[in-house]
Amino acid sequence: MAEMRTGPIGHDELALAARNHGMPLEALRYPITPAGLHYLLIHYDIPAVDPGAWRLEIDGNVATPLTLGVEDLAARPRVTVPVILECAGNGRALQSPRPLSQPWLLEAVGNAEWTGTPLRPLLEEAGMLDGSVEVLFTGLDRGIEGAIDQAYERSLPLAEAIGDDVLLADEMNGQPLLPQHGFPLRLIVPGWYGMTQVKWLHRIQVLTEPFEGYQHTNSYRFAASENDPGEPLSRIRPRSLMVPPGVPGFPIRTRHAEPGPTLVQGRAWSGLGAIERVEFSSDGGATWADAELTPATGDFAWCGWTFTWEAEPGEHELCCRTTDETGATQPLEGEWNVGGYSNNAVQRVPVVVAEPVG
Amino acid sequence: MAEMRTGPIGHDELALAARNHGMPLEALRYPITPAGLHYLLIHYDIPAVDPGAWRLEIDGNVATPLTLGVEDLAARPRVTVPVILECAGNGRALQSPRPLSQPWLLEAVGNAEWTGTPLRPLLEEAGMLDGSVEVLFTGLDRGIEGAIDQAYERSLPLAEAIGDDVLLADEMNGQPLLPQHGFPLRLIVPGWYGMTQVKWLHRIQVLTEPFEGYQHTNSYRFAASENDPGEPLSRIRPRSLMVPPGVPGFPIRTRHAEPGPTLVQGRAWSGLGAIERVEFSSDGGATWADAELTPATGDFAWCGWTFTWEAEPGEHELCCRTTDETGATQPLEGEWNVGGYSNNAVQRVPVVVAEPVG
Repeated sequence: MAEMRTGPIGHDELALAARNHGMPLEALRYPITPAGLHYLLIHYDIPAVDPGAWRLEIDGNVATPLTLGVEDLAARPRVTVPVILECAGNGRALQSPRPLSQPWLLEAVGNAEWTGTPLRPLLEEAGMLDGSVEVLFTGLDRGIEGAIDQAYERSLPLAEAIGDDVLLADEMNGQPLLPQHGFPLRLIVPGWYGMTQVKWLHRIQVLTEPFEGYQHTNSYRFAASENDPGEPLSRIRPRSLMVPPGVPGFPIRTRHAEPGPTLVQGRAWSGLGAIERVEFSSDGGATWADAELTPATGDFAWCGWTFTWEAEPGEHELCCRTTDETGATQPLEGEWNVGGYSNNAVQRVPVVVAEPVG
Repeated sequence: MAEMRTGPIGHDELALAARNHGMPLEALRYPITPAGLHYLLIHYDIPAVDPGAWRLEIDGNVATPLTLGVEDLAARPRVTVPVILECAGNGRALQSPRPLSQPWLLEAVGNAEWTGTPLRPLLEEAGMLDGSVEVLFTGLDRGIEGAIDQAYERSLPLAEAIGDDVLLADEMNGQPLLPQHGFPLRLIVPGWYGMTQVKWLHRIQVLTEPFEGYQHTNSYRFAASENDPGEPLSRIRPRSLMVPPGVPGFPIRTRHAEPGPTLVQGRAWSGLGAIERVEFSSDGGATWADAELTPATGDFAWCGWTFTWEAEPGEHELCCRTTDETGATQPLEGEWNVGGYSNNAVQRVPVVVAEPVG
């Protein structure tokens, strides 16, 4: 199982952080995250894919297995939806102890527009047979994890896989998928954490038994201890983030702001339901006030929020928290688990406000 | 001055690593680095720029100061060149002790196609006056460094600034600059380290005295000790990198390969002159053999190389090193300096080769 750590970050964790990109938080300002600023978690390597030779196989417990090329998929009905994606490990490095894994702070998020063809009609075309319980999605990325040589693959319960919003996406923000986002095809399951959004997708199998692969049995479970099998992760817990106000220091990125009314802006999302509330605190979470919400541009997109903070000279700790329509909210302290998953504790942004000039 | 560190990475260094993107080394396979895989070092924050309101000012020691908008620049003569860019701090986290700064391993590199208008004709149009010695480039990004509230700005000696290849770029890989790469305009000085390539450029001043700003006097110098003023950095030292062969582990990214002939591919570059040689070692640098070179696609682009490695079962340390036409080569151990700059020691890639099957 995972090696647990406290304190500074090992060079092995840095080797992951150097290649898995976070979204710099000032990019919360863009309603749609531009290419190259969206977070990336690549379990193994970005595979080299020849789009001419690439095929998607749909098989398993179906009447008519299908084989589709890039052009077959592009010729099918297309939809475009803005979708928040977040890594299940976002916030992991803020948990203590943390497992040896990608040491995310809070940047493992993005809200892009994904274009592709809905999955359900393809499964209907293949003709799912009686006894189907899950659908397995396999990527071309391969590596060795837990001493097992494996392709990255994850399944979905059948009811989720045939959901209205599940998409096989070949474009991001109106452009062909970039290599690192799964070219030529990836799965998009709105509302679910990133581990579900299989990239470099090349096979979809309808299963008659629940899948018990590594990424289900060993990873992506809420386990309270090494011996607890835990419950599987699925939908994104509510989170809000702010663009840290003022200007940063370098190399220590403490924020420095001017006194006076300061418009703080941010985003909020939840995979469990619509965002109903965002609150802001300038005293480390002791007192809270409601922020103003901007509606989301889609059912699975983030929404915007703003709060005018009366910045007074001195040191402050700004926080934000959101609550969705199910009543789920962000805790002041994250709920600890072995994998360091889904740590949606409120963001804390120390800010130094200068004395007024003159 | 910089705080020096050894051993694991602090959370303050991680906060930099989480936002400054490296290029995953398998992306060395792409002759032109795709959007979102090119390295990024953002000293402060990505500024929000309204392209309609944005103007470039060219002033200082000139006869006719110029003010240009986005469309004025787009209407000028345009050239496209592939250029290797590398952060001066690439390799910093492999130096010990290292300064508190962005903890790069080896991923701070990219080779994109930049399109824009040459700088010299603009300076000629402004009419540089007698006594001009340097040209200062100022970006819109701002932060507090060394207790100084500053915009990021760097100068070039006049002879360099009027070089044939210096470009004001507004496109990368045939697309408008992404926000994080300097939208709407950045400087491209082929052959120089990344600190020179000022992003979010909004002012160009012709100077009659050498510029002594923070990024020249306090940063980007080869200093042997805290009290050594050191020499300024300029051109990129030679470096070669390989795509780590085989497949990675997760979370420890050790490479696992099969026995037999294995095509290892990589890139090499130098800002000092053309690449003449790349060598490969499978025994940690004890013995070397020449790799095969593929010509660069431009004077300032990286070139490709391949080597067929006869992989035998066991543990190996693969290395590569390059030599340019000036005779400059890569050392086995980097030359230590206070800033952790320009550490071009040979890359070392541990690989475990399996026993043959059957």
